[in-house]
Amino acid sequence: MRNSTPSEIDSVLASASAAGEMYGKLPGAARAAFLEAIASGLEALGAPLIETAMRETNLGQVRLEGERARTTGQLRMFANLIRSEQWRDIRIEEGDPSAQPRPKPDLRRTQVPLGPVAVFGASNFPLAFSVPGGDTASALAAGCPVVCKAHPSHPETSRLCADAILEAAQQTAMPEGVFGIVWGGPETGAALVKDPRIHAVGFTGSLKAGRALLDLAASRPCPIPVYAEMGSVNPVFLMEGALSARCESIAKGYADSLTLGVGQFCTNPGVVVGVANGDWERFLTLTATHLSRVEGSQMLNPSIAECYATGVSNREAHPSLEVLVSGSGSSPALFKVSGQEFLADHSLQEELFGPSGIAVECASRDEMLDVGRALEGQLTATIHFEPSDQARTAKLLAVLATKAGRLVANGFPTGVEVNSAMQHGGPYPATTDSRSTSVGTAAILRFVRPIAFQDFPAELLPGHFGL
Amino acid sequence: MRNSTPSEIDSVLASASAAGEMYGKLPGAARAAFLEAIASGLEALGAPLIETAMRETNLGQVRLEGERARTTGQLRMFANLIRSEQWRDIRIEEGDPSAQPRPKPDLRRTQVPLGPVAVFGASNFPLAFSVPGGDTASALAAGCPVVCKAHPSHPETSRLCADAILEAAQQTAMPEGVFGIVWGGPETGAALVKDPRIHAVGFTGSLKAGRALLDLAASRPCPIPVYAEMGSVNPVFLMEGALSARCESIAKGYADSLTLGVGQFCTNPGVVVGVANGDWERFLTLTATHLSRVEGSQMLNPSIAECYATGVSNREAHPSLEVLVSGSGSSPALFKVSGQEFLADHSLQEELFGPSGIAVECASRDEMLDVGRALEGQLTATIHFEPSDQARTAKLLAVLATKAGRLVANGFPTGVEVNSAMQHGGPYPATTDSRSTSVGTAAILRFVRPIAFQDFPAELLPGHFGL
Repeated sequence: MRNSTPSEIDSVLASASAAGEMYGKLPGAARAAFLEAIASGLEALGAPLIETAMRETNLGQVRLEGERARTTGQLRMFANLIRSEQWRDIRIEEGDPSAQPRPKPDLRRTQVPLGPVAVFGASNFPLAFSVPGGDTASALAAGCPVVCKAHPSHPETSRLCADAILEAAQQTAMPEGVFGIVWGGPETGAALVKDPRIHAVGFTGSLKAGRALLDLAASRPCPIPVYAEMGSVNPVFLMEGALSARCESIAKGYADSLTLGVGQFCTNPGVVVGVANGDWERFLTLTATHLSRVEGSQMLNPSIAECYATGVSNREAHPSLEVLVSGSGSSPALFKVSGQEFLADHSLQEELFGPSGIAVECASRDEMLDVGRALEGQLTATIHFEPSDQARTAKLLAVLATKAGRLVANGFPTGVEVNSAMQHGGPYPATTDSRSTSVGTAAILRFVRPIAFQDFPAELLPGHFGL
Repeated sequence: MRNSTPSEIDSVLASASAAGEMYGKLPGAARAAFLEAIASGLEALGAPLIETAMRETNLGQVRLEGERARTTGQLRMFANLIRSEQWRDIRIEEGDPSAQPRPKPDLRRTQVPLGPVAVFGASNFPLAFSVPGGDTASALAAGCPVVCKAHPSHPETSRLCADAILEAAQQTAMPEGVFGIVWGGPETGAALVKDPRIHAVGFTGSLKAGRALLDLAASRPCPIPVYAEMGSVNPVFLMEGALSARCESIAKGYADSLTLGVGQFCTNPGVVVGVANGDWERFLTLTATHLSRVEGSQMLNPSIAECYATGVSNREAHPSLEVLVSGSGSSPALFKVSGQEFLADHSLQEELFGPSGIAVECASRDEMLDVGRALEGQLTATIHFEPSDQARTAKLLAVLATKAGRLVANGFPTGVEVNSAMQHGGPYPATTDSRSTSVGTAAILRFVRPIAFQDFPAELLPGHFGL
């Protein structure tokens, strides 16, 4: 697709802005019907959508079919959520004219949409985190029009999805401008984020790009929230009891999680931490064997593949890193570093997007705790443990709870459930706003603000107070 | 008080940081006992606290006694809130090992404290929005240590309150560093906001100072949330039916609200809007009469008094403003401007802290709507209406709902209830984060972030999951 011109971008923003007032006030059932029509529309696109995405992203058919199911599933999840108004955290304090020292007013607090939201498509999820993805679904559910910037690496997939959304909007008689799409690079994104008609930003991508958007939004005359989900190395801690009891299955599970989707998940476990002993040695050997058997697949796009190859080369040349599995092209790589050296070099905490892991070998349990304490913000942190590890696990868990948004016991961080209890978001730099999630029903809360009505008669209150 | 030295500030921050882990994990009942001990401590300070505050702020005894009652009331309100864990919006999705295509994990989502919070005392509420005020109460309730920067205009009041908090912390065996106080000007504030040990900021004050703190926080390597409650002119719209039915009482109510506490409330109604007709003329005459009978009192401090006097002079010299009541010193002032001229000069929307009002005289109902549309973000917006005004009121209300955090029917914005349904916060520049409130129980949500536990056994989960 050719890039949108400034006047095309302006026109999309004007339409979104005009749609906002009417769209934000539709009953939940009407917005729900729209979301469900989008889900059906994505399904009706059938095999051609999957084939297009396969061609543009190098992702496989099974993965993409699963991703479409997830995408339609979360659209329907939000549709179900907004059929009831419970999600608004409605709070009512009834008035009392006889209260002393002065009458108590009637106060009713609810949530209203922020206004048009700019959504940035991600490269690694052409459906679930792109044009029809979680940010779009949650913003539309909240009552906010969406202006989406398609990710340049899968334009045709984005076009198909955008058309399905626009058709669903027509079918369900949504106001014109409730959804719009623009095409372009960083300048297009910056134009959206700086525009006064945009009231919030949803983004999934790199730390560099996410931080740039955050800084732009913060420098506006009227700053707006930015929900950027960025990098994370999703550390996995292996306690001694767990390694002693389940070394094989942990090694297999770790290798599978590290290489799932060519390591192109934001929950990819790029760091694994253990205390040096025989089981740990065996874990490293087994993991290396698994990884060396995994063939490299094509990555999402040439620029990501190049970044990965360069990153692996840099790690191979890093004086503190020992090469356990040497990746070439997009094949998996594994490196080892001592706890002390990991603690001394902050750059080893930087995410390398792709199937490359760093095994941090600690000299002691205390050093393992120190590694936990030295981590920056993470989407997830995982601990493998057995009952014999419990006291040490509790101590480590307390540290990791200050670092991550989701803590995983005896599992792996890839595979993110989409439901009411998911938290996908953690302290900076994992995201720009740890107070929110980009997955699950709570994601709707990113795009609303509270408002209180004092002493209004029933006929002037929003219908959802149920009067 | 002399200013805190950099090493004193560092030591307070180090203590707060050290206290965080333990304090954040205390059971709700323990933190509740601490909050209640603070409330009792403030009461035990008796008359000397009130006398000190009177001397330092020029506020009256009745007002300050009321403010202390509000302050202790909100401490106890948060204590009651956190005795139950319901405020955490706990979400549980039970696991299902037999789920297809893969087992469903057990997910439990709760809220954890962000860490130490910097609280900035306000000049206009030496108790309720200062050292022991709402920000401190809600942050401590959430499980965050507090580092407070006392407002320089009431140091002795701040010292007394800080000592009461520190004593309450000792009495209830809170970890050392759970509360600390520092003294100084903007550089001291900047040092707090930039420090990596601070995880959020609560502030009440001017737009200029609030924005400066926001910009500082946004420029940190690791940005943090800033909850700054800043300026607002809290417009009051008078519909024709209301003016016809209740002109006298509206004029009296408006004059009282505008001059309450020498106009030094963030909810002061600095703008009143109506459509030109005989009732509106009468409203202006009656209001002017009321205002001209109010004697000027001393303002909070000489710098505020000087700003007010300068602001009134500037308004008197403004070519679009007609002087209805000419203020001298800190006495009330009232100006009139046409709707067109108000729309043409954005500076007329700037808050002038003190008892000065601008009456916007619209040529038509449409112009009144245009004035509503042109407003920037507000803490509150008020409409006076009668049943005969209802259709027009609904239209105006829809506009004002996009501008303000609290909408008031047939009342006045001063007098902020402290309860579960209050929303005290609105779109920028009323606050830096419209998604939050600084008054009422929901204020606790500013200082927490969600976290999900996946597949952890009961004995490793936080106690508040109630397992």
